[in-house]
Amino acid sequence: MVLAKVVGTVVSSHKAAKIEGIKFLLLEKIDPVTMKGKGDFVVSMDSVGAGVGEIVFYVSGSSARFTGVTEGKPCDSAIVAIVDYIEKDGSYTYEKNR
Amino acid sequence: MVLAKVVGTVVSSHKAAKIEGIKFLLLEKIDPVTMKGKGDFVVSMDSVGAGVGEIVFYVSGSSARFTGVTEGKPCDSAIVAIVDYIEKDGSYTYEKNR
Amino acid sequence: MVLAKVVGTVVSSHKAAKIEGIKFLLLEKIDPVTMKGKGDFVVSMDSVGAGVGEIVFYVSGSSARFTGVTEGKPCDSAIVAIVDYIEKDGSYTYEKNR
Amino acid sequence: MVLAKVVGTVVSSHKAAKIEGIKFLLLEKIDPVTMKGKGDFVVSMDSVGAGVGEIVFYVSGSSARFTGVTEGKPCDSAIVAIVDYIEKDGSYTYEKNR
Amino acid sequence: MVLAKVVGTVVSSHKAAKIEGIKFLLLEKIDPVTMKGKGDFVVSMDSVGAGVGEIVFYVSGSSARFTGVTEGKPCDSAIVAIVDYIEKDGSYTYEKNR
Repeated sequence: MVLAKVVGTVVSSHKAAKIEGIKFLLLEKIDPVTMKGKGDFVVSMDSVGAGVGEIVFYVSGSSARFTGVTEGKPCDSAIVAIVDYIEKDGSYTYEKNR
Repeated sequence: MVLAKVVGTVVSSHKAAKIEGIKFLLLEKIDPVTMKGKGDFVVSMDSVGAGVGEIVFYVSGSSARFTGVTEGKPCDSAIVAIVDYIEKDGSYTYEKNR
Repeated sequence: MVLAKVVGTVVSSHKAAKIEGIKFLLLEKIDPVTMKGKGDFVVSMDSVGAGVGEIVFYVSGSSARFTGVTEGKPCDSAIVAIVDYIEKDGSYTYEKNR
Repeated sequence: MVLAKVVGTVVSSHKAAKIEGIKFLLLEKIDPVTMKGKGDFVVSMDSVGAGVGEIVFYVSGSSARFTGVTEGKPCDSAIVAIVDYIEKDGSYTYEKNR
Repeated sequence: MVLAKVVGTVVSSHKAAKIEGIKFLLLEKIDPVTMKGKGDFVVSMDSVGAGVGEIVFYVSGSSARFTGVTEGKPCDSAIVAIVDYIEKDGSYTYEKNR
């Protein structure tokens, strides 16, 4: 899974029938040490109610179809967790409520 | 899913039987902040009637076979949405009808 | 799918039993604007009778097993189309018989 | 599979139901010659009881769902081995208990 | 599939039960024109009895589970052929027994 920040939304009125009603979030991949964005973006389907500004991790490929929201759908990226904290080498690089 | 602009078409008269009759569009990946092309191209099968100049997002890998058009076919990239707008950090980076 | 030029062949007498009798072509990925090779190579299984010098596109991942030649085989890249022409922004960047 | 070092943990209280109770480890990919980190990180689900500081290799994509811990789950990266030693060109580049 | 050179082995005594007894080889991806290593490594499961120094190609992703050795296992890279020669633009860039 890859760590990213929710930075926006993508809206489409004309899309494959199977993905009607799903929220498409714009994610920017982050470096988990500096917590800075990498300028690399992906559109991800939300399965956990993530919001703009939150740090999440998403799953790619066929496994992105293994959430309740995305099963059987043309989806290759699904947010599966909102991150509370990231700990690296004994210290926190990220704490959500701080 | 990945954001891209439809920039052209690819035509083949000699191809795998399973993909006869499908439209192959040439996509250039874009940066959703600047909306500029990245010089990185992919051939994608169209499931939504996208046209040249439109901003779309496509799905890759096995999930590209989960559209009505591509099911059971040797397809690793399918356009699943025509984008209306992209919102990042509270402002629009792209609006289709503007 | 990705555009590439057939630049050679790879021969193996000692290989997995399931891929006996399949032709392995050496592909160089190309830029569809300049039509130049990118110096990035992949070995692909041929499902359409492609020959050296031709521009093709190939499918990757699990979808590479969805051709008549590669079904059920350990194959992650299969050529599925020989390209006749590529049109970008209203002009041809490639025409096969020219 | 890809070689990496376990450098930390990622904690989420709000996540897809299917991945409740799984440990998420933060891995940094390594160069197996110099054994240095590459500054490239991935979140991986642990199927072998790996700990911070250990060298492991993980499996990506659909195959990440083929461990006892990750079966049927939205998981695209699973640690499947703790490395004892790496031998390259006749000498060890890594020995665990040294 | 991707061309690589077998440069070593990776040994693990603590690993997922399903991959007990499989040989893990360290591969370095090569440029098939210069035949030089690219400094990019992958751990691959061997299905053909490859040895250090040999040029091989391996299959990635779900297709890596389609060999007799790797079926049903958490494996995303399997060696499926030992290369005898590579021919590019009419001349050999590699011949095994030369």
